Amino acid sequence: MAIRFLTAGESHGKALIGIIEGIPAGLSISATDIEEDLRRRQGGYGRGGRMKIEADRAEILSGVRWGMTIGSPICLLIENKDWANWSEAMSPEKIHEGSKEPITRPRPGHADLAGAIKFAQKDMRNILERSSARETAMRVALGAVAKRFLREFGIKIGSFVTGIGTINISLPLSIPEERLLELFSLSEGSQVRCPDTEATKEITSLIDRASKSGDSLGGQFLVFAIGVPPGLGSHIQWDRRLGGRLSQALSSIQAIKGVEIGSGFRTSEMMGSEAMDIIVYEGNRFKRLTNHAGGIEGGMTNGMPITLRAVMKPIPTQRRPLRSVDIITKDVVEATYERSDICAVPAASVIGEAMVALVLTDAFLEKFGGDSISETKRNYQSYLEYIERF
Amino acid sequence: MAIRFLTAGESHGKALIGIIEGIPAGLSISATDIEEDLRRRQGGYGRGGRMKIEADRAEILSGVRWGMTIGSPICLLIENKDWANWSEAMSPEKIHEGSKEPITRPRPGHADLAGAIKFAQKDMRNILERSSARETAMRVALGAVAKRFLREFGIKIGSFVTGIGTINISLPLSIPEERLLELFSLSEGSQVRCPDTEATKEITSLIDRASKSGDSLGGQFLVFAIGVPPGLGSHIQWDRRLGGRLSQALSSIQAIKGVEIGSGFRTSEMMGSEAMDIIVYEGNRFKRLTNHAGGIEGGMTNGMPITLRAVMKPIPTQRRPLRSVDIITKDVVEATYERSDICAVPAASVIGEAMVALVLTDAFLEKFGGDSISETKRNYQSYLEYIERF
Amino acid sequence: MAIRFLTAGESHGKALIGIIEGIPAGLSISATDIEEDLRRRQGGYGRGGRMKIEADRAEILSGVRWGMTIGSPICLLIENKDWANWSEAMSPEKIHEGSKEPITRPRPGHADLAGAIKFAQKDMRNILERSSARETAMRVALGAVAKRFLREFGIKIGSFVTGIGTINISLPLSIPEERLLELFSLSEGSQVRCPDTEATKEITSLIDRASKSGDSLGGQFLVFAIGVPPGLGSHIQWDRRLGGRLSQALSSIQAIKGVEIGSGFRTSEMMGSEAMDIIVYEGNRFKRLTNHAGGIEGGMTNGMPITLRAVMKPIPTQRRPLRSVDIITKDVVEATYERSDICAVPAASVIGEAMVALVLTDAFLEKFGGDSISETKRNYQSYLEYIERF
Amino acid sequence: MAIRFLTAGESHGKALIGIIEGIPAGLSISATDIEEDLRRRQGGYGRGGRMKIEADRAEILSGVRWGMTIGSPICLLIENKDWANWSEAMSPEKIHEGSKEPITRPRPGHADLAGAIKFAQKDMRNILERSSARETAMRVALGAVAKRFLREFGIKIGSFVTGIGTINISLPLSIPEERLLELFSLSEGSQVRCPDTEATKEITSLIDRASKSGDSLGGQFLVFAIGVPPGLGSHIQWDRRLGGRLSQALSSIQAIKGVEIGSGFRTSEMMGSEAMDIIVYEGNRFKRLTNHAGGIEGGMTNGMPITLRAVMKPIPTQRRPLRSVDIITKDVVEATYERSDICAVPAASVIGEAMVALVLTDAFLEKFGGDSISETKRNYQSYLEYIERF
Repeated sequence: MAIRFLTAGESHGKALIGIIEGIPAGLSISATDIEEDLRRRQGGYGRGGRMKIEADRAEILSGVRWGMTIGSPICLLIENKDWANWSEAMSPEKIHEGSKEPITRPRPGHADLAGAIKFAQKDMRNILERSSARETAMRVALGAVAKRFLREFGIKIGSFVTGIGTINISLPLSIPEERLLELFSLSEGSQVRCPDTEATKEITSLIDRASKSGDSLGGQFLVFAIGVPPGLGSHIQWDRRLGGRLSQALSSIQAIKGVEIGSGFRTSEMMGSEAMDIIVYEGNRFKRLTNHAGGIEGGMTNGMPITLRAVMKPIPTQRRPLRSVDIITKDVVEATYERSDICAVPAASVIGEAMVALVLTDAFLEKFGGDSISETKRNYQSYLEYIERF
Repeated sequence: MAIRFLTAGESHGKALIGIIEGIPAGLSISATDIEEDLRRRQGGYGRGGRMKIEADRAEILSGVRWGMTIGSPICLLIENKDWANWSEAMSPEKIHEGSKEPITRPRPGHADLAGAIKFAQKDMRNILERSSARETAMRVALGAVAKRFLREFGIKIGSFVTGIGTINISLPLSIPEERLLELFSLSEGSQVRCPDTEATKEITSLIDRASKSGDSLGGQFLVFAIGVPPGLGSHIQWDRRLGGRLSQALSSIQAIKGVEIGSGFRTSEMMGSEAMDIIVYEGNRFKRLTNHAGGIEGGMTNGMPITLRAVMKPIPTQRRPLRSVDIITKDVVEATYERSDICAVPAASVIGEAMVALVLTDAFLEKFGGDSISETKRNYQSYLEYIERF
Repeated sequence: MAIRFLTAGESHGKALIGIIEGIPAGLSISATDIEEDLRRRQGGYGRGGRMKIEADRAEILSGVRWGMTIGSPICLLIENKDWANWSEAMSPEKIHEGSKEPITRPRPGHADLAGAIKFAQKDMRNILERSSARETAMRVALGAVAKRFLREFGIKIGSFVTGIGTINISLPLSIPEERLLELFSLSEGSQVRCPDTEATKEITSLIDRASKSGDSLGGQFLVFAIGVPPGLGSHIQWDRRLGGRLSQALSSIQAIKGVEIGSGFRTSEMMGSEAMDIIVYEGNRFKRLTNHAGGIEGGMTNGMPITLRAVMKPIPTQRRPLRSVDIITKDVVEATYERSDICAVPAASVIGEAMVALVLTDAFLEKFGGDSISETKRNYQSYLEYIERF
Repeated sequence: MAIRFLTAGESHGKALIGIIEGIPAGLSISATDIEEDLRRRQGGYGRGGRMKIEADRAEILSGVRWGMTIGSPICLLIENKDWANWSEAMSPEKIHEGSKEPITRPRPGHADLAGAIKFAQKDMRNILERSSARETAMRVALGAVAKRFLREFGIKIGSFVTGIGTINISLPLSIPEERLLELFSLSEGSQVRCPDTEATKEITSLIDRASKSGDSLGGQFLVFAIGVPPGLGSHIQWDRRLGGRLSQALSSIQAIKGVEIGSGFRTSEMMGSEAMDIIVYEGNRFKRLTNHAGGIEGGMTNGMPITLRAVMKPIPTQRRPLRSVDIITKDVVEATYERSDICAVPAASVIGEAMVALVLTDAFLEKFGGDSISETKRNYQSYLEYIERF
């Protein structure tokens, strides 16, 4: 790995913290660059009350001086604005022991029960505080650093929601670059990050109905990356293949149950002669007439847009709770209820952007090296010139 | 990582080689254990002529003595039976330079072009020899070692094909353990690893038609693991989540363009109240009434069967070649043709088993430790007893 | 790796931050456990003025609730008490740019010049702020967590200084366990962590003389671990060998220029018949009559105390500055002076303990697994019983 | 890591195998390049009888075509020429079980006992076959590939023996580049890789005496790297520091009990004003007047020669065996005797070269990236030009 990152922090703990290292020196970056993505993550119709409390802001604790990275690890911290109300319940100190009732009724679909068994915990708060998707705020903050890096090289990452619940928009399998940007731009104006106005309306009313019935919704989204050069990732070893690394990154997001690259599951019904992207040569560059491959062939980028689709299951926490078993008494009970969203697909798409940005930054630095932006740029520029001559 | 493995070898090189390390001492293993899976990988209606040449056999070069692992790295070697015909074309020696025409017409859908640019090669044989799915024979061999390890702990991995081309079999989203085993058993008798006799017939005739027209086919398959304890993987960090690690493993197989965990993409149209698996307590163990989660909640196994679905795109190599561009002359040409299968979905399902076995072995040893099978068994047994008391 | 850790933070930045993950749940830990080691690191005759400002205290930001680890990543933060005086000079914001003169006169012996070239920086503050040994405060804090973990299994880590400048104490090559503990205990009462009272006096007066002449001193120390079971680390692959991992850990401490295991460099003058530790069997356990091996044979612990010696070069920063070259003007100049210690060997020995504790924790969890202290203890206990029967 | 490598194989197994991946395409390499170093490793007065049997030759099984690397993993295989005599004793097949007496009398100083306990083996052949330094033949072969890579960038690695037993040659702490090359050249003509003719004589007679008395000898050696650019490794995180990585690499060699960087242990008696290397500027480059730092400051190369010293303990296997305990009967016995060398320090120095070459190749590719030699060269050249302008 050219970059490494770790996150820490509980959902209602004092703060979320992230460290990323390996980003070259000389990258201009500010807290504002990061806040924009934190705001985008917090949006979306159907979010729970917490979103209002939060108003996330990432403080840069290290690695940046006078607006520029200096090569050392970048540490970001997002304070829990509601900490005053949780300082006893989540205190690291022994003296607060017992200040909050234990959670003993696991929610189906969450880490609660498997985590309690694995880590030998009888209060499942000790699991759900970390398994909660709250943690992804820090992924988005770190991802914003990665995006800022990629932007220096003309690489742009975006996403949009393609469906929530039973409302899905219809899109061609292979979407040209300009159309991806247009869909992205439209989605930025939608309450549910959906590029279709009509669908947006239907989705919001679907969310209203789910909210009323105490239920929840899942959905699907697309993440893309544009401006990626050919040759990131590698075919030479299973764990260097970029498709696998991107699949892991998206699948590692809470509630994601499936990932597709390019035309994904629909390629299985196509004939070989239909599913491949014809190679042409125009203006000194190799191109593809279509993009069923989603920008990845043989585990490497091919220069076309990277397109990935992911599915998020409905949020497992239900206001009308599901049936469960108390882990102490073993009685049949209703699962515990923690304040939750009705639908978090729009947020998930922003998190997806972050994870894709982190993986691409890693693959980019693996190939081009460099300890300063100027060095990485020299190396990159020289590769682009080489491609022109290839 | 508790285990590590690397593979090496070109498609028409002298041999494929794999090293796996971290497997405890005292595991009984023989070349025959491995051959069985190699044979299963080689089967399948619609495979190219090469399958006959090969008759793969893995030689154990290290790490096993008198039928037992001794803790040191296990090295496997699969000879290329056709090496005599390739010894000049693929020689490591300089003296054979030019003994075979360079490949300059990249096949759409393959690593050819992206790899040639990345590695600065003008003869794309230098790319396709390694990007070829031939490499997966070694993954299957290493996976057989992992399966042999998991079997000691009552964990069984299997797979079956659910569709090829436009022929798909209909299956419930959540399939009980016994039914998975039954479908697996049926598929072992099918020429295309499909548990449905009728579908098998339709698929073979579909393959015949594709063969005649010089085209190729993709499809879908399901991999499962039964007997997995709760608590493998972890929710605490993105890259420890088992869902992500399994997705990477499957996505890293050549031509795989999508992966689903449990009910996957179909969960997005379900309401939260439908998509979760109700928790019950029976016979001193927690169970789930259904298995939409595919055995994974919060990035951890929950004790239910792991179910993963994957899609394979049609094989890009076409006997009726696709349009391409010569990388030397830049002329519009027909893509090169290398002997190839019409359909490799049955093989891919066996490779999927191997990759799942390797990931689970890693996660298992991470949790239970142990340098000998007896030590790992003691630790595992004590965990099972703890669960009974939980 | 069973555990992972990263640190972040600049010497005069807002804070030092560390994340460690992989520590099992259920470990009792408090900020006080950590403070004790931070205090030990800060002590030592000959430290610069900064030690008074600091009075380091580690805040636990995550991973611990009500005095117990919960399995999630543990994040520690050590505030810079002097931040008010540095908030402009080290601000992440662009608006403070130029609020402090750049450092352009590299100090021989430091990262200054090599770092400036590598990261393309013209103000070497951007290098020295991270390369400074200030960073090791966080390593000590994370190491305190590791020590707390090891203590649960009866493993004790300690250290003492064996020499500073030309004053060295004479010790046998092979030191029995009880004597190591005694030397440790004596050193805890010494101003320079040296177990010999006479030597301590000579060293302090040596430090006084160096201080007066504006010079600095290096020295040597010994780190030991007692109660370590046989079988940590492994002979099977170069990077699993524990000797190598411990050497890396100690060599990674700022200014360390050499590491010895057991009798180290002095073994080269011994005959084979003298340098080996005779194996005996007493009270159902294998023991060694001596410990020239320093507890490590074949890359594994053998159950005897681990003993490691390291050398620290004199602190490169000199009040009477060394000759250097200005990186802007290329003129011959005196190197810059940053407030600094005269001698930091006592601190280095405490940092050495931390690094050894982190490596041993990693190797321990690799072998014994476990996600809760109770599980790891069960596994460990069962191994000890097995050894009795071996 | 930019490169990865694993080795496999038992001392008397069928073969030693190594896989290295991450080496760029387009590197010219031949089996002869590798054989030269294998031959150098096998030399040295005082080697056991085995050296005559062996005459190691590495076969290139993958990753090289027509004399050039193609980017895919390089696999090397060294056959055991004596396999015919061991094919039953070391057979992977169960049928040969019991064809050789178990080894039950552990040799002090070897992995035998600790390994037997760790891996639960009652026949210690199952440990010593892998812990044996025979494995280093493959490290030397892989290291030869790394050296070949570094040579493209003008980096040269060498070594010489500085002492065996009580015979040590006297050398200045800081040795200029030209002198290192001269000492290396002299050592290549010595039977014990020692640059001093007189010392060589004394050492050989010392070895003769040890041989007669059934004893063994250790010693010390120096490894250097010349032509290394400033900026490899990094100060930003403990495990990126090059000093630590090199220390691990050398300490991971069998029987190595200590490693020094530059002036090493002798720096502790120097004052700060003596121990640092004054910076000067000559001919558009920064240089140092001396090289006590051994080419590494702040965890990074500074452009001066890298110099590392290591100590090897005497070979633990004794023809006049040491006292031990039978692991079955627990009786006091004489340790087992396996054919062995009297002294292997000359070989260890060649192995040291290999390990240093592998670490430097990794650090080099981390900084400069590149998937083909031409790309890495472009990036490197552009860095060298940047340094001229710095």
